[in-house]
Amino acid sequence: MKSLLAEVNISEGRNLDVVEKVKLALLEKEDIRLIDLDSDKDHNRTVFTYIGEPDAILEATKRLAAKAIELIDMTKHEGSHPRMGAVDVVPFIPVKNITTEEAVKIAREFGKFLGGLGVPVYYYEDAATKPERMSLVKIRKGQYEALPEKMKNPEWEPDEGPHEFVPKSGATVTGVRFPLVAFNVNLKTENIEIGKKIVKAVRGATGGYKYVRAIALSLEDKKMVQVSMNLVNYEKTPIPRVMETIRSEATRYGVLIDGAELVGPVPLMALEEVLKHYLQVHDFSMEQIYY
Amino acid sequence: MKSLLAEVNISEGRNLDVVEKVKLALLEKEDIRLIDLDSDKDHNRTVFTYIGEPDAILEATKRLAAKAIELIDMTKHEGSHPRMGAVDVVPFIPVKNITTEEAVKIAREFGKFLGGLGVPVYYYEDAATKPERMSLVKIRKGQYEALPEKMKNPEWEPDEGPHEFVPKSGATVTGVRFPLVAFNVNLKTENIEIGKKIVKAVRGATGGYKYVRAIALSLEDKKMVQVSMNLVNYEKTPIPRVMETIRSEATRYGVLIDGAELVGPVPLMALEEVLKHYLQVHDFSMEQIYY
Repeated sequence: MKSLLAEVNISEGRNLDVVEKVKLALLEKEDIRLIDLDSDKDHNRTVFTYIGEPDAILEATKRLAAKAIELIDMTKHEGSHPRMGAVDVVPFIPVKNITTEEAVKIAREFGKFLGGLGVPVYYYEDAATKPERMSLVKIRKGQYEALPEKMKNPEWEPDEGPHEFVPKSGATVTGVRFPLVAFNVNLKTENIEIGKKIVKAVRGATGGYKYVRAIALSLEDKKMVQVSMNLVNYEKTPIPRVMETIRSEATRYGVLIDGAELVGPVPLMALEEVLKHYLQVHDFSMEQIYY
Repeated sequence: MKSLLAEVNISEGRNLDVVEKVKLALLEKEDIRLIDLDSDKDHNRTVFTYIGEPDAILEATKRLAAKAIELIDMTKHEGSHPRMGAVDVVPFIPVKNITTEEAVKIAREFGKFLGGLGVPVYYYEDAATKPERMSLVKIRKGQYEALPEKMKNPEWEPDEGPHEFVPKSGATVTGVRFPLVAFNVNLKTENIEIGKKIVKAVRGATGGYKYVRAIALSLEDKKMVQVSMNLVNYEKTPIPRVMETIRSEATRYGVLIDGAELVGPVPLMALEEVLKHYLQVHDFSMEQIYY
């Protein structure tokens, strides 16, 4: 059975009546499984995470998006998280028995549908049509407020939908990416400098592991420092290698790990290297697991 | 969704034509998932492992058993593994959203069905009707060959089916038990005495962990010693605790672990403590995993 995940970010996290209506549209048919729904008031943003067969995911995402486009008015949106549209970012994530190419086809069909509803759409990451559109950060630079000017620039012509600014919906970014693992490690120290040194050692941008993004945070209530990470390719940079590097770097400063957190949904396949590394089961196959 | 596992041991592992016919009966309906099929020539025995909703598992097990009873003649059976029937042992194992009581109901319905086919049936472990029938080893003592005498003893009256010896089918043991984890650890030494000392330290019978059964084996081709274990309750005696105890005991003798093996099907829930222990994710929930 093929399995595709969608992680839809909409620009509404305060009016829970709207969130509920969008959720009802998503769940109108019972052929997908909602695995996480997270509304954040500060961000004024909600993330829907759901999984199922590719065609069911495509149809469910169309229902969700049509309802969100109908109910959300970006001219009134405020929130602390970067955004540029009512349906802001829609990554599709291949989970099982599905190639990146097949997932890109789904993302493109979704993009055409949204374009047909009158929403400008940009494709990103593995669905990007140009190298400079790979990065969400670059596409979203300046956010919603920059769109009227940006869309006059031929370089930023949308991939689907109208070629001019649409005030109510803003623009949507959709595409295909590898599953993220959000992993935080809490250190038994209040010294943020130690946290910063460890971040420098593990993250790709400063010479560490290529697929690790990391920042150091003070956890004031816990009197600890946290290394907060996104592991963007758990196959090439596996969780246990990052964990043990942090442990080793922390030990240099006489600091122990108090605990760690895997945040939100975690793909089963990301756990393969955890088992193989720590239990030394070199020939283990994830096919042996039943549930 | 409820999920029940069945692990059916039949007394045929050499005539693969018979095994194939039994398999076809099992898979006649597509509502269960066969996760392992292992035929062993020395044992002259085949183990079918499959999973699904409880009612589907019951019906599939009836189909499998009826076919095996029809095709296997115990008067001609030879093999190195202890056995007493054509359908020898049938444990049902609760996997998800199902209580032991519900699983016992399934085992008893299966037992009544087999009894109706003219096969003497004993219930064991969580389905046992008397304390002395908890243990498979005790029920099967003396094997098939001992049945004619044993069944004259009122203490060994079957729970279902005829109260006398049936030469062709022998007797069947069915019940409900916790999922087993078969876990082997290979040590970088050829000294079997070190293996035996470690076995003594970890297994329940000699003062170690209550739910560990273990033996030490020589792996002659690998020039290593193996601690070969069944972990019979991974909740109360988790895998990483056993692994780290073996590592610590081996270190006493200057011996390292070369690798380990998780053999056959492994329940997802047995991996919870592996993650929590090694990644120190104290608050992790297995509900976060998607696949």
